[in-house]
Order: sequence, then structure tokens, then C-alpha cells
Amino acid sequence: MAYAAAVLRRCDELAAFSEDEGRLTRRFATPALWRAGEKVREWMEAAGMAVRRDAIGNLIGRLGDPDRPTLLIGSHLDTVRDAGRYDGMLGVLVAIGCLERLRDQGRSLPYAVEVLAFADEEGVRYGTGYLGSSVVAGCFDAAVLERRDSGGVALADAVRAFGGDPDAVADARREPADLIGYYEVHIEQGPVLEADGVPLGVVGAIAGQRRARITFSGEAGHAGTVPMALRRDALCGAAEFVSAVEAAARDQDGVVATVGALEVQGGASNVIPARVTLSLDVRHAADPVRETVGRRLRERAGAIADARGLTLEWEVMQETRAVVCSTELTDLVAEAVVASGHPVVRLTSGAGHDAVMLSTITPIAMLFVRCAGGVSHNPAESVTVDDVAAAIDATTRLLELVG
Amino acid sequence: MAYAAAVLRRCDELAAFSEDEGRLTRRFATPALWRAGEKVREWMEAAGMAVRRDAIGNLIGRLGDPDRPTLLIGSHLDTVRDAGRYDGMLGVLVAIGCLERLRDQGRSLPYAVEVLAFADEEGVRYGTGYLGSSVVAGCFDAAVLERRDSGGVALADAVRAFGGDPDAVADARREPADLIGYYEVHIEQGPVLEADGVPLGVVGAIAGQRRARITFSGEAGHAGTVPMALRRDALCGAAEFVSAVEAAARDQDGVVATVGALEVQGGASNVIPARVTLSLDVRHAADPVRETVGRRLRERAGAIADARGLTLEWEVMQETRAVVCSTELTDLVAEAVVASGHPVVRLTSGAGHDAVMLSTITPIAMLFVRCAGGVSHNPAESVTVDDVAAAIDATTRLLELVG
Repeated sequence: MAYAAAVLRRCDELAAFSEDEGRLTRRFATPALWRAGEKVREWMEAAGMAVRRDAIGNLIGRLGDPDRPTLLIGSHLDTVRDAGRYDGMLGVLVAIGCLERLRDQGRSLPYAVEVLAFADEEGVRYGTGYLGSSVVAGCFDAAVLERRDSGGVALADAVRAFGGDPDAVADARREPADLIGYYEVHIEQGPVLEADGVPLGVVGAIAGQRRARITFSGEAGHAGTVPMALRRDALCGAAEFVSAVEAAARDQDGVVATVGALEVQGGASNVIPARVTLSLDVRHAADPVRETVGRRLRERAGAIADARGLTLEWEVMQETRAVVCSTELTDLVAEAVVASGHPVVRLTSGAGHDAVMLSTITPIAMLFVRCAGGVSHNPAESVTVDDVAAAIDATTRLLELVG
Repeated sequence: MAYAAAVLRRCDELAAFSEDEGRLTRRFATPALWRAGEKVREWMEAAGMAVRRDAIGNLIGRLGDPDRPTLLIGSHLDTVRDAGRYDGMLGVLVAIGCLERLRDQGRSLPYAVEVLAFADEEGVRYGTGYLGSSVVAGCFDAAVLERRDSGGVALADAVRAFGGDPDAVADARREPADLIGYYEVHIEQGPVLEADGVPLGVVGAIAGQRRARITFSGEAGHAGTVPMALRRDALCGAAEFVSAVEAAARDQDGVVATVGALEVQGGASNVIPARVTLSLDVRHAADPVRETVGRRLRERAGAIADARGLTLEWEVMQETRAVVCSTELTDLVAEAVVASGHPVVRLTSGAGHDAVMLSTITPIAMLFVRCAGGVSHNPAESVTVDDVAAAIDATTRLLELVG
């Protein structure tokens, strides 16, 4: 429990490194992120690791001889605006805690471990989600170096100011042959573990995602004078579609589908809505399932529009494929969870993680930690010391199983 | 047809009196309204009427001896912002046109006629709908004299600047015993006559109306990580309610019900909506029907909220009772419409009119004129010369039938 308490204390300490007074905001290549990284460097070095920063500014602590095969364990140190203190940081600090615990117990591993503290996963400053892990995975897109932040600073200049080297970023890819795999501990960011009453979740896949922007257009009219039969009400069409989205997701196990934004253009209580725009977000662990649900919803939207004399616009904003975790590594995680005395709850991650990028070069596995109310991206993010202790215990056992 | 063409020409002339350059806006007690009234005074006087303004600034033209019973015919000269040129003005100018036609034919009526050009029906400047007709009907609320417009001008001062007398307003009520009734010609502001292919509509009642503001509150969450079964999605509840509103109105003949505004608080594509506020507008010619539909919808909203673990707020914003037109006077209007060669289409007015106020002191009847696309409160408001000719012909015959 001492290691878990230390992890929570360190999460508190890191939360003090912020761009904003009174709330936690720590974007890529800011002084706040640098100082948080230097604090993590201290803990890594105290745990016996050799520490370096790579060309993009990721902090990397290594334990073990250079010629040994390497298990990567990581997460990120950057945050959203007004963030919680666990999303990202918890995974880095649990990894360090496990290595401290093994060292204190006088045990060593027959392979090398590297703890990766990525410099940009949220992508808040440059719209570059997974930037840090994309460099390690060799998926870096050099075109983003020219992007500018809201203050006009180019990404390349930000990297230089952060002590990195934009010209070397493309060559920072890790050699797959040297790697055993990548493992990440993260808060769940959802309510399933809390609802099930268990501290840990074993991630089977990271869901693929489709985002679309959909517009129904009809005809405005006076709310008092146009009979129901003569209306072409865009909001009634949109409402029927929102219900169809919910029903489609409920019908298909594991699908989540959300209309998070909906706007009635020029909405007024006495005017029949002429134009409604809404967002659609569909996710599932299996791409064919997600694609089928997406296609059916599009057909359904078309049918709703046709039946109501509305026109439909459907614009795909984003589409990412699902990432399946390594069966072998994930089975070891499940074995470690059982060995630490907890039931195995298998989950799909509905949110993206650095593991998505790492999956392109090495087997991946993830462990979720229960968080209060499923809340994240919010100062109210909260985990218990017992659950963190469970994560440390399971992870330490995993390290022994991998060996 | 010459009288109808003159009416349309006069509508164009009045449209030039506006507060705004390039669009028609003519609010209560503005110089634009004054000048429009003075132009109407010219036409009234040319038609042989004695013209005066009352204490609130309504323009009143009288034809006939002071001791004769009086038929009131009226509508309003004020407009909404960026208005069309027929809503209100058409009724005043058709009345004048009919009296000109009778005079040109050398015919006189055995009773007096007063043409009322109300100074404020839309209530745009002071939020005082029906202000002009409320004074004539003795329904004036003296408290509104203290209201200020957006420029800080008190209503009492505006009345004085307009040549009126705020102290005399309460006494401007017409004596019911002197009156035969009140008749108003107005554009339909809806699409029914156009859909039926007929120029004129006979109004049976002016619908009562309930407006409510309704809020569903649930719980925010990550669109990717909260399973469907654990969600309390406020928008899904709101969408179910919007569909219920539409279905309830379709189920009950003559009911119109509209959700015109709907707002997702802090809506974002990847966040489950926590709070949705929407408007509800329900109208029907029979108050018990409207009340039953309103009560059922409220029960339905409560059931939806309960089933979904949402909370419901329901705030009644406005409630007005239906006004039934005089059977006798309305039957004469129908007879006049038949005599002028047109079928009788009986309509409920879903919008309010000055006739609502006059109904408190005298029998009322209304004639609707087909307008293109049912459009009103918009520069695209449009009527045809043939339809205006039909309205003049029917109204002239009505004047003879009343006699």
C-alpha cells in the first residue's frame, strides 16, 4: 500500500505543474510539461533508471542492459485544459512504483524495461493526438511540424524550445525486433468497473470510431398556422434519428453511439424548425460491426428524410479503425489480475490511448483502473489508494510473468 | 379589380414608411408609424370618413352618423422587424377599399362603419401584444405605461410624443351597446388555403395557446466509455419527447404542437448530453382539447424522465384561452364568400389577432386571405390581386348583409 500511496502523492505533486493558476492544464512543450517531466526524471533515476528525452521530448527511463529485449510501459504527462490528475500520469507513476517495489524486494527481471512518459497524447496545443507515441512508433507525420498553435508558434520551434530536434523526429522509431511489447495502465474513464464493483479491467481492444455531422433540412413555418400534415419539421426528423441511434446501439452488444451536439438553426418557440445539425459518434471493438451500424444509421437517416420531405446531408468527419490487443500479452495481464486476487473484467476501451500507436510496432496490452463515477477530463477525476495498490500488484506480477 | 390593385399599391406605399433602411420595421409610436398613419388618414378622408386618433394613437376613420350602431373593421399598421407589407395593413386597406367601392356605386349603409388602424399589435417595442386593440376593448393594463423600450423611453412618454394621452387611455374603451360587431381581414399566415386552392378562409376561432419551457437533465459522460445501459442521456429523453409531441398533435384533429427551440447545454460530439432545454407550443380552437393534450404531454415527459433516470423541469411560460368567433356574424361572412363565388373553407386561426381583444366587447368575425407559401413576418409575404379582389368582394357583400 506504501507504493500506491506514493503514486497518489506523486500525482498530486505533478498536478502543481500547470500553465493555469488554480487548475491543471499542461499542453505539449510548455514549461509546465518540462518541469513535470524533470520531476518524473528524479523518480526514475531514484528507481535506478537511466533517463533520456527523445527527439520530440518524450521522457524515457530504462532499467536493464542495452542488448536485452525490452518491455515498454508508458502513458502520457500532458493534459487537457482543466484536467484531472490521473489521466496519463497514473500509468507512468504505477510503472515507476512497480520497478521500485521489485528493487526493494531485491528482485530483478531477465529483460529490460523502459518507462515512457509521452509528451503529447491529448493534442490540445496542436491538434496532434498521440504525437509522442507516434514518434516512438514511427508513425510521425513530418507535415505537422509546420502547424502553429493559437499564439503562432510553429510545432518545429516548440520542439526546439523543448530541447528536442525536429529533424531527428522521423528517425526516433523504436526497432520492433528489440521489443517484447507495450503495456499501459490507465484510468477507465468510464463507469463499468465501478458498476461491477471491481478495481481492475483487462482491455481486449480499443474501439474504432466514426464521427459524422448530419443535417436535416425542411421548411420553416408559423407554429400556430401550419397544420401538422403540411409540416416539414427538421427537428421532428432529427428527434426520430436520435432515437434510432440509441436503439441501434442498444440492439448490438458493445456498440456505443452518441448524438452529443444538436443545433436548431434560428430556433424559436413559435417557429417550425427548418434546419437541424447534429453530431454522430459510433464506436465498437470490431470494425465490421461499427461499419454495419454506421451504414444502417445512414440508411435510416435517409429513410426518415424521405418520409418527411426533408433533405439530408451526411459528412464523415473522422474514421479510425479498432485496435485489438495482443492475445498472449493480454492473457498474461488477466493471469496477473487473478493472481493479485481480483476478478477479470474484460473491457473495450472506448477512448483512444498511446497503445493505439504502439500497436503498429509491437504487441500491446492495457490495464484499466476504476475511477469514481467514470469521470475524466475533469478536476473531479478520482481513484482510490486500494485500486492503485491493486494495479501495482497486478502489474508487478505481470512483469514476473513476462519474464 | 381596380380596388384590389389600389389596395396592393397602397400596401407598397406604406412599406416605404420604415424605421430601417432597406427593410420594413415599424414599431409602436415611431415616426415611421406616424407617417404611415397620416398616409392612411388621407385615404380615409378621401373615402369620406371623419378621422381621429384615440388616446393610444390608434387611427379611426368613421363613416356614418354618430348615433347609429357601428360596425368596427380593423387591423394594425405596426410591424415586426424585417416584416412583410400585408400582415395588418391589408385588413385596414381592404376596409377602406370596400367603402370606396360602395361610395362609387352610390350605395350607403344603414349603420355606421369605423375603420380601426391599430397602433400596436405585434408589441415589438414594449412587449405589448394587442396594445392598440386592448385600449379600444377596455382591457388596457395601466402598469405597462411604465415599461421602457431598449432605448430607455417609457411607454407613457412614447404615447405623449405620438400625440396621445396616457392619462386618457383607460377611458378610451368603446361602449359595447353602440357596436354591431368587429370584423377583420388578415392574411392567413399559414399554408392551408394555398393547399386547398381557395382564396378566402372563414375563421371559426382563434386558437388558445400554451407555451412551456422544458428541461431534461441527466448525466454527462464520455461518448466512448459509458455503455448504453449506464447512460442517462438528456438528449435521448428530449428526442423521445419531441416525437411524442408530434404524435400527440397528429392524433388529435386540429391540434398543432411544436418544439421550435432545443438546446443541448455544452453540446460536444464526444460528450453524452447532460442537460437539454426545449420549448413547447400547443394550440387548439377548443380549450379543453388543448388542456388535455398539454396535460398528457406533461405526463408523458414525466414518464420519459422516470424511465430514463432523468429529472424534468416544466415551466409554463404563457397560456391564452381560445376565442370563438360570433356564429351569427361568421355565418354572414360565409354567406358573403359564397355569394362572391368562392367555396367556404373554415379555419382556426393559429396566430393571435386584434379580434381577440375586441371579442371581449362585441361579436367578432374574421376573413383570411391566401398568402404565398403561408409565409408571414418576412419580406417574402405575398398575396395576389385576384385574392385581394375576392376579399373586397366578399367584404362588400358582408357589409350589405349586415345591413
